[in-house]
Amino acid sequence: MKERSMDGKTIILRLEIDTQQAYFGKAVSAIEAAGGDIVAIDVIQTDKQISIRDLTVKIAEAGAAERLQAALQSVPGIRLRHVSDRTFLLHLGGKITIQPKTPIQNRDDLSRVYTPDVARVCQAIEADPKKAFTLTIKRNTVAVVSDGSAVLGLGNIGPYAAMPVMEGKAMLFKQFADVDAFPICLDTQDTEQIIASIKHLAPAFGGINLEDISAPRCFEIERRLRDELDIPVFHDDQHGTAVVLYAGLLNSLKLTKRNIEDTRFVVCGIGAAGTACTKMLLAGGAKHIIGVDREGILTADRTYSHPMWQWYAQHTNEARISGGLKEALANADVFIGVSAGGILTREHIESMAPDPIVFAMANPEPEIRPELAEDIVAVMATGRSDYPNQINNVLCFPGIFRGALDSRAVTINEQMKLAAAEAIASVISEDELSRIYIIPSVFNTRVVEEVRRRVIQAAQDSGAARRRPRE
Amino acid sequence: MKERSMDGKTIILRLEIDTQQAYFGKAVSAIEAAGGDIVAIDVIQTDKQISIRDLTVKIAEAGAAERLQAALQSVPGIRLRHVSDRTFLLHLGGKITIQPKTPIQNRDDLSRVYTPDVARVCQAIEADPKKAFTLTIKRNTVAVVSDGSAVLGLGNIGPYAAMPVMEGKAMLFKQFADVDAFPICLDTQDTEQIIASIKHLAPAFGGINLEDISAPRCFEIERRLRDELDIPVFHDDQHGTAVVLYAGLLNSLKLTKRNIEDTRFVVCGIGAAGTACTKMLLAGGAKHIIGVDREGILTADRTYSHPMWQWYAQHTNEARISGGLKEALANADVFIGVSAGGILTREHIESMAPDPIVFAMANPEPEIRPELAEDIVAVMATGRSDYPNQINNVLCFPGIFRGALDSRAVTINEQMKLAAAEAIASVISEDELSRIYIIPSVFNTRVVEEVRRRVIQAAQDSGAARRRPRE
Repeated sequence: MKERSMDGKTIILRLEIDTQQAYFGKAVSAIEAAGGDIVAIDVIQTDKQISIRDLTVKIAEAGAAERLQAALQSVPGIRLRHVSDRTFLLHLGGKITIQPKTPIQNRDDLSRVYTPDVARVCQAIEADPKKAFTLTIKRNTVAVVSDGSAVLGLGNIGPYAAMPVMEGKAMLFKQFADVDAFPICLDTQDTEQIIASIKHLAPAFGGINLEDISAPRCFEIERRLRDELDIPVFHDDQHGTAVVLYAGLLNSLKLTKRNIEDTRFVVCGIGAAGTACTKMLLAGGAKHIIGVDREGILTADRTYSHPMWQWYAQHTNEARISGGLKEALANADVFIGVSAGGILTREHIESMAPDPIVFAMANPEPEIRPELAEDIVAVMATGRSDYPNQINNVLCFPGIFRGALDSRAVTINEQMKLAAAEAIASVISEDELSRIYIIPSVFNTRVVEEVRRRVIQAAQDSGAARRRPRE
Repeated sequence: MKERSMDGKTIILRLEIDTQQAYFGKAVSAIEAAGGDIVAIDVIQTDKQISIRDLTVKIAEAGAAERLQAALQSVPGIRLRHVSDRTFLLHLGGKITIQPKTPIQNRDDLSRVYTPDVARVCQAIEADPKKAFTLTIKRNTVAVVSDGSAVLGLGNIGPYAAMPVMEGKAMLFKQFADVDAFPICLDTQDTEQIIASIKHLAPAFGGINLEDISAPRCFEIERRLRDELDIPVFHDDQHGTAVVLYAGLLNSLKLTKRNIEDTRFVVCGIGAAGTACTKMLLAGGAKHIIGVDREGILTADRTYSHPMWQWYAQHTNEARISGGLKEALANADVFIGVSAGGILTREHIESMAPDPIVFAMANPEPEIRPELAEDIVAVMATGRSDYPNQINNVLCFPGIFRGALDSRAVTINEQMKLAAAEAIASVISEDELSRIYIIPSVFNTRVVEEVRRRVIQAAQDSGAARRRPRE
């Protein structure tokens, strides 16, 4: 799951001062009166009429930045050109860069990496297209592709505004698993055009990470690309979430001494993530799952216009229970929420079986705040970093792609996803396991190693691998 | 222009030795008997049955590598798994990598470059899409796009085999002009699909460098993308060649004291590059141009099914001369060849005006070898690095995109191309200018600086710039 919001403590103001009309001292007074502490001044440009300066200002309280901006706007001859905080400064000019692996220092270097000698490498690939995996960046490169239609909690913000998320993801791929990832934000939200464009740009890539594409288009796009491409296609919002959730569940079941076959699950919010989580539970052996959405419990006694709900009703709720969240939760063991903030109450949890497990993953506001229920649950997990047990996709995608690339897999299949979840869960030893430590930190370096190792093994065992990597 | 071919002096052989059947010594004897000198041995993997070793071998003469391979294949129990030379080794795993600009060391870093804090950056771009240029990689990133249909002299080798060229180009962009370039090789050769895919992936990029796309599709693709995108689209095979050629011509005309208006040009080979060169000559003020192709001199007295030839015939050859290359060249001042090796003779050149200028740019074999004509020409240039005066696209594309990105140009127009050519020519001072030095080396660092400076100025003057960069 992904989270949002937070505020910076240091901001940078770029001021344009009309030196005929205003003095710099006026700006300084306005800033200090509004509660800002100027810690640095950089003159960017200056001439007879205009002086442009960057002021680094510390602000103490929330709201101070807005008061400060208002104060400056009232000073004649001063124009506030930008306000940047550390987050914005980190984004200036983007967050990734493309580097040659070797320098081109002379004619000899040039003739090897480019014309004329590169022609021999091209011919080798033409003669044997598999060599694209050894002689081009394909071996280690993943496209992070979005259409900007369902970005974080922000909704349909389009391809330009989605870029910072995809660039961030590319950074994480590199930092955590040494995967080269490039962000592609598509300027179309038409299913067929998205499929066609991704197929067309696939030759450079060893894998496709789909990201933040809204349902139901994301299902069709992923299904078609999985069928039509010979490299892994992985919609992280669905499968990344499902893998990490399943890892957390494995450890929660262990901690509460349950086996998955007898455990009663309630999944609340049957969208892309909820469906993917349910499919993993089924693949892992779960027998008792009830899905709840806006219209209540999904049951095979009804028919649904939404094909995903129709599928869901036919594959879950074997007892054909009807009703709402309350009815679903009576005596349930596990609540899995990928729905909306605040919909779960203490009373709901009190109606569950003893030692209930609650995964409240709605963002930014969980289905129930942990502090409201921690005394009555056995385990509580959320999507947030400010509570224990964060279900964070960053635990999955770097390692699962690292394993898929290293085994040159044609796909990421259910076996590989289960292996990734088991790997994540296994990083926490029996001794370490506790109700506030069911899932490792994203900064635990053993996670990627272990996920890679088990995913490679699963790729071999399931026939998805085209290569057996040396250890 | 681009060149091809050449051979390595050190090769690396990967041998798989069946230890039951063969001894390593047999491989060593076979290699030495075939003229190879083993300088290093690396054991890659070994078990009871199989031993895999990399042998670094120096070879003296051409053909030794092939003899050596044949010799090894005749040793029972030895399998030659790969032969790599330095060029191939440089290509292992591809030639570029994607790097985060800042490390993600802790939770605070993570929350700024990714969720939750990245959401504020996304919202800022959503509110003002122009901010994509400051807050994403768009400001400095170019897509190098090919469909693999006309790669170097190799022809239609497809998107996989074209990747090493596009990766090489990305290296050059970075090394020479600090432009981040990413290679995209499209798995389609359909004009409309190429146009649609490039439009869809454009949001991440500040410019599109089209590369090695065959005529006539390259014209339509470039024209449509120029109309439909608000970032520069530049088909390097046409315009890069034309700019560098024009730079060389400016200095050749200066050296031979000609002015462009009175100079008689013959362009031989009316494809993509020939047409682009002609358009630059016309934009630069040339009045007397004759085009020659397989059917002879193009003249408005005839009609042509090929729309490019039709356009050409109507805009050149004002005297409506007819005939072949011989007729075209009588008394001409300048021969510009972008056609085929060996088609120009000494007799042809002897029929030209005094102090003839010959640009023989066919690759790998020029229209005439410089040694066959250097005593009867005033200036001779080719596309090859092993003769003086190499017309090399690397002189243009890094600097012209640097200038276009820095001025946030909406296009690269004729004025900017002329400015780039003048900049390249200007790097050679009056004192330095000579018949064997009309064009600077690609390693002359002043080239990019000067091209950038003049291209920015031309973008401002012509209204293409969206931003005035600080010096």
